[in-house]
Amino acid sequence: MISLCEICDILKNNDFFTILMHQSPDGDTVGSAYALCRALQKHGKHAKVLCSDKISDKFDYIKKSVVSEIFADNFIISVDISDTKLLGENLSHYSNKINLCIDHHSSNVGYAENNFVNSRASATCEIIFELIKLMNIEIDKQIADSIYTGISTDTGCFKYSNVTFKTHLIAAELLEIGSKSAYINRIMFDTKTKQRLKLEKLVMETLEFYCKDKCAVINLTNDMLEKCDYKEEDTDGISSIPKRISGVEVGVTIIEKETNSFKVSIRTDGNINASNICFKFGGGGHRAAGGCKINGEFPKVKQKIIKAVFEELGNNND
Amino acid sequence: MISLCEICDILKNNDFFTILMHQSPDGDTVGSAYALCRALQKHGKHAKVLCSDKISDKFDYIKKSVVSEIFADNFIISVDISDTKLLGENLSHYSNKINLCIDHHSSNVGYAENNFVNSRASATCEIIFELIKLMNIEIDKQIADSIYTGISTDTGCFKYSNVTFKTHLIAAELLEIGSKSAYINRIMFDTKTKQRLKLEKLVMETLEFYCKDKCAVINLTNDMLEKCDYKEEDTDGISSIPKRISGVEVGVTIIEKETNSFKVSIRTDGNINASNICFKFGGGGHRAAGGCKINGEFPKVKQKIIKAVFEELGNNND
Repeated sequence: MISLCEICDILKNNDFFTILMHQSPDGDTVGSAYALCRALQKHGKHAKVLCSDKISDKFDYIKKSVVSEIFADNFIISVDISDTKLLGENLSHYSNKINLCIDHHSSNVGYAENNFVNSRASATCEIIFELIKLMNIEIDKQIADSIYTGISTDTGCFKYSNVTFKTHLIAAELLEIGSKSAYINRIMFDTKTKQRLKLEKLVMETLEFYCKDKCAVINLTNDMLEKCDYKEEDTDGISSIPKRISGVEVGVTIIEKETNSFKVSIRTDGNINASNICFKFGGGGHRAAGGCKINGEFPKVKQKIIKAVFEELGNNND
Repeated sequence: MISLCEICDILKNNDFFTILMHQSPDGDTVGSAYALCRALQKHGKHAKVLCSDKISDKFDYIKKSVVSEIFADNFIISVDISDTKLLGENLSHYSNKINLCIDHHSSNVGYAENNFVNSRASATCEIIFELIKLMNIEIDKQIADSIYTGISTDTGCFKYSNVTFKTHLIAAELLEIGSKSAYINRIMFDTKTKQRLKLEKLVMETLEFYCKDKCAVINLTNDMLEKCDYKEEDTDGISSIPKRISGVEVGVTIIEKETNSFKVSIRTDGNINASNICFKFGGGGHRAAGGCKINGEFPKVKQKIIKAVFEELGNNND
């Protein structure tokens, strides 16, 4: 693995950077990509960001922080992507062409020419913050907002066990720079549309308990989304609902992507390893949060994932 | 107003401290009282804490941080209490006897012999943190947990606009000391019993919109609590539900205390002044959160508070 200093040199000695985000983009991949892109542009370099899926409108304040550029691919950077499978359909052709990967997932498979993975960072944005400082590029309000977004969303607003004293020190600095943290948090955590409320109500009606109530399962179908006039890209946060029920050690959310194809999100309090469960189905993640795709009919998919949860609970209690 | 240094001297020159919390105790009043109590005890002083209402079991880890002491009242301190009305029934006899008040509410009426009010502090616990440091008393893990609890609960886990860079710097220090922040946040924010889920469902069914959807109102009755086998002291957080709906500028929660007597909680994003609304009914609070008591039949109480919200919205849009 290369060091942050070496990344500085690499970035200084190259130009025309294409920065890739992961599919189903969240605050950390979006914040990391745009913060790095803006920093490179401020530094006189050419840089652009790409994502396989549409980036939600709620990130509009981030999206307008970079200048849109068009140029041929030259140096490819991936941010917050543990595996090239997560590039998504529209970016899969980059799989073997990534020059630099910056990530914080312990499950990172090291697919790039140069890999920098720090799993102690609460978010990839923590690493991007350090990198930009190390490059001596001024962190302005826009960059601060992007980085704050990644840190805040990946830590559940400083709620989870991945938060360290360093996370708070960085947040302190971002607030001093003028990041509009309260505005960002309101958009990311505290704004529910009436449609969202309706959707959550439908989802809650699917709630079931397994493994002596240690596992709670909810599911989200395309039919529900349609009923609520709701976009799939805005379903962020739904998957943290089942884990919140007291006594539940593993929260499972099964999201219908297309007929007989499901995205499964696992949330735990870190005692049970979520990524172990997802790994069985070709997915990955952290101890407290993981995801995978399972194909098949819904009842069978549910059965498979519950069996995997049951086994992991058993392993843990042995 | 006295200074923090003068408070240090006062505490050093006195002994046998009775520390009062406000009624319906929240994380900040509990955290402040116990942190200060433990610090004074560590300093070789005698100190005890008192609250008019039962302190929820979820604060058990804080409650066991002090040694229980019995002694006659000598020096009375109130923490996080803006008005003696908030002492509650069982402590109302202290109203004219409070020697020192430490608080962060801008609505504080200055009722004590010595008053220290810093409304820029996100929580009274921020002030207690500085005070303990100034007294040169070691902040151990238990004190860190109490202070973290107050800061985290009063900022919605670092979500609200009352958070400053200082708030994050203090949090960084508390984490370095070893505060079990993730555990605390899980209890305070992310643990919902099945009863709580049921209660929220009932409460959500009362949701109504007023003032061109800028005001959302929910209500909570004793009947609902009974139906869900739920304790009133655990209804914390219910009042932040209506404000979360997008477009809503004022969230109103009307809680039945007894027949024809209601507690009203107002939440705003700070543009509309919640304490102005509550002040009309003898209550108080901050810009973003306030509370008051209104007696009368439910429909009339609702009408009164909606009228006050309407007026405040009008004043603001003028």
